[in-house]
Amino acid sequence: MKPLGPIPAGYGEAAGRLTIDGQDVLALVEAAGRTPLFVYSRALIAARVARLRAALPVGVALHYAIKANPFRPVLDTLHDLVDGFDIASGGELDKVVAAGIDPRRVSFAGPGKRDDELARAVACGVTLNLESEGEAERVLRIAERDGRVPRLAVRVNPDFDLKGSGMKMGGGAKPFGLDVERVPDLVRRIVAAGAEWRGFHIFAGSQALSAEHIIETQAQTLQLAARLAEQAGQPVPHLNLGGGFGIPYFPGDEPLDLERVGAALAERLADLPAALAGTRFCIELGRYLVGEAGVYLTRIVDRKISHGEVFLVTDGGLHHQLAASGNFGTVVRRNYPVAIATRYADPVEEEASVVGCLCTPLDRLADKGGFPRADVGDIVAVFCAGAYGATASPAEFLGQGPAAEMMV
Amino acid sequence: MKPLGPIPAGYGEAAGRLTIDGQDVLALVEAAGRTPLFVYSRALIAARVARLRAALPVGVALHYAIKANPFRPVLDTLHDLVDGFDIASGGELDKVVAAGIDPRRVSFAGPGKRDDELARAVACGVTLNLESEGEAERVLRIAERDGRVPRLAVRVNPDFDLKGSGMKMGGGAKPFGLDVERVPDLVRRIVAAGAEWRGFHIFAGSQALSAEHIIETQAQTLQLAARLAEQAGQPVPHLNLGGGFGIPYFPGDEPLDLERVGAALAERLADLPAALAGTRFCIELGRYLVGEAGVYLTRIVDRKISHGEVFLVTDGGLHHQLAASGNFGTVVRRNYPVAIATRYADPVEEEASVVGCLCTPLDRLADKGGFPRADVGDIVAVFCAGAYGATASPAEFLGQGPAAEMMV
Repeated sequence: MKPLGPIPAGYGEAAGRLTIDGQDVLALVEAAGRTPLFVYSRALIAARVARLRAALPVGVALHYAIKANPFRPVLDTLHDLVDGFDIASGGELDKVVAAGIDPRRVSFAGPGKRDDELARAVACGVTLNLESEGEAERVLRIAERDGRVPRLAVRVNPDFDLKGSGMKMGGGAKPFGLDVERVPDLVRRIVAAGAEWRGFHIFAGSQALSAEHIIETQAQTLQLAARLAEQAGQPVPHLNLGGGFGIPYFPGDEPLDLERVGAALAERLADLPAALAGTRFCIELGRYLVGEAGVYLTRIVDRKISHGEVFLVTDGGLHHQLAASGNFGTVVRRNYPVAIATRYADPVEEEASVVGCLCTPLDRLADKGGFPRADVGDIVAVFCAGAYGATASPAEFLGQGPAAEMMV
Repeated sequence: MKPLGPIPAGYGEAAGRLTIDGQDVLALVEAAGRTPLFVYSRALIAARVARLRAALPVGVALHYAIKANPFRPVLDTLHDLVDGFDIASGGELDKVVAAGIDPRRVSFAGPGKRDDELARAVACGVTLNLESEGEAERVLRIAERDGRVPRLAVRVNPDFDLKGSGMKMGGGAKPFGLDVERVPDLVRRIVAAGAEWRGFHIFAGSQALSAEHIIETQAQTLQLAARLAEQAGQPVPHLNLGGGFGIPYFPGDEPLDLERVGAALAERLADLPAALAGTRFCIELGRYLVGEAGVYLTRIVDRKISHGEVFLVTDGGLHHQLAASGNFGTVVRRNYPVAIATRYADPVEEEASVVGCLCTPLDRLADKGGFPRADVGDIVAVFCAGAYGATASPAEFLGQGPAAEMMV
């Protein structure tokens, strides 16, 4: 048997079935009218925000990167809980505007912003995290043409990475941000052009579980921002420290020691370099806010044996859960936390693989895991489905279409 | 510099720019009104079918697996060119019905068919490739309830795989089809239940470039079908030999020697086992029919240098070209055929990486390839984009949405 990832805290059991915020999965599936179904818990999102607020130093702003999960009720839930929102496309700008989020609370990063996206962002007061000198010139031209004062920050490609992170975003040649040595010139250019100078965005990596590595990266980020501010001869109104806070997906993963990160950051902020004396800091998180608050529910439509192995064939699959299938940014496939939601209190009785309905061997949600004996009609739960699930998967593959989504 | 995959035959150049079926890419982009854009060539699809017809023995039917590309004009193009269509979901059933394809020319395979999908397929005369005894019982129950005679074939999990194939679909424990030793019982059960017995579907793998391996697999498939027919005491009205014909994507890939495959199959069919004397054979192809007939066009929105490396940042990316980014079923990332379509006649002048607009290091369309010097506004062409592109990619990721699609 291969191990399964750890089920996040905050889920319950009643009458032998998984409960999400106290509600029976069968009732949730009935309310949705179909499977596959993503269920997100408002209470778990709010609890995560509360824990962050308690752990992070007072005054550090909390931003949500909506790319993790742009489902409208998720945005509505976070509307009054976080201080800002980060977008990565014009499509995401539409989503925050539709959700009634003040665009002045929004920043926009992304290496390939089109002119029409820049123009719309400038028009509504979104802060643009500039990714290159070329992009800066484009946006200054557009702002002048449209008679606007653009709000501009510079994204820095740091000369370090976040150790142990799932995605390294610094420490070498990258398509993101400006190399450090070219940053001061661009800052001066922006200020001279009359733009509103907003500060720096420095993002060294994502999905890190080691407090030590995050603490080290935050310290490096503060030093780098101070150095750049001095070289540019400009204060830093705002510093986006990035995020990188990971969640446990796989067997053996241990949760991040958030309180240790917060305490270390408080120490740093109490002893700031002079160049950052007037700076407002923020942490930008996506996955860490919503990832563990979502569950993907899919129904078993066949139970079959091949060469002695049990396959539980579901009506879901990689078209909704690409990362769980091991096909998105992972080299070695490992199992997410997966359980039989309708036999949640039962002991492990057999080894089985949970596969999707797609006609490809890539479509595997759990490989040779230990499960209670499940059959046609049972519901499988894939946990850690709150981030990079529905929108980060090829929903139209094989004509399947999107899953249902629901907030409880 | 890292090598790029081989550009398929059939593309041209005029005025220094790529032409598709004689049409300038810039004119095509203008006609579509935007990038990113998939362009599919009717002429290249028709030429591929003609070559298959010439190479395959007379009487072998040709089927199209629409999962490769379900774009309506592609279905319209193939409507009169192929003999049958294969679907993998109720959603794909909708697509063939909407395209006016006679459902009696259609077969439906897939390990996780839901009851409602089975009922609709039975009602309109689609042949169901049964994946398990459980599915057989479900469909027989549904057909009886609805007063229909279902058309049923059995998908066999062969006791061999297609060597060198990109996706192995046989030769061990698999969620697809029935293990060989259980097939005769199921055939007898189907016939006894009064269903229309349609024969076998045996699919050992996909994306193979070696004629020798395909020839060997076809021979094994014929032997297996004959043995199963004898054991079941039933003739085989129809035998789907699968496909597995690959196309060259990567540096060093050589095209399949199709004519050799056809000649070998002709020899086999001239010397058939008695059990297959009355059998009608078909080859089911998806990627091989349409993959090389499609090009993905995306515009460069930034050109930037980081640590001495050149990045061409485009308005497209892995949300339309997941496989080209190396994130779908590949372990080692290699470059697809990629070119600067608007400088198609220019020599290689520099090493550059083509990246997408998504804010993730996974979003890379070409890694350190050799290109002419390209700049903002130039169009990048990713070839071999006709299959498993638009629908096999997470189009909604980061709020981007689908690319435009066009048939010429």
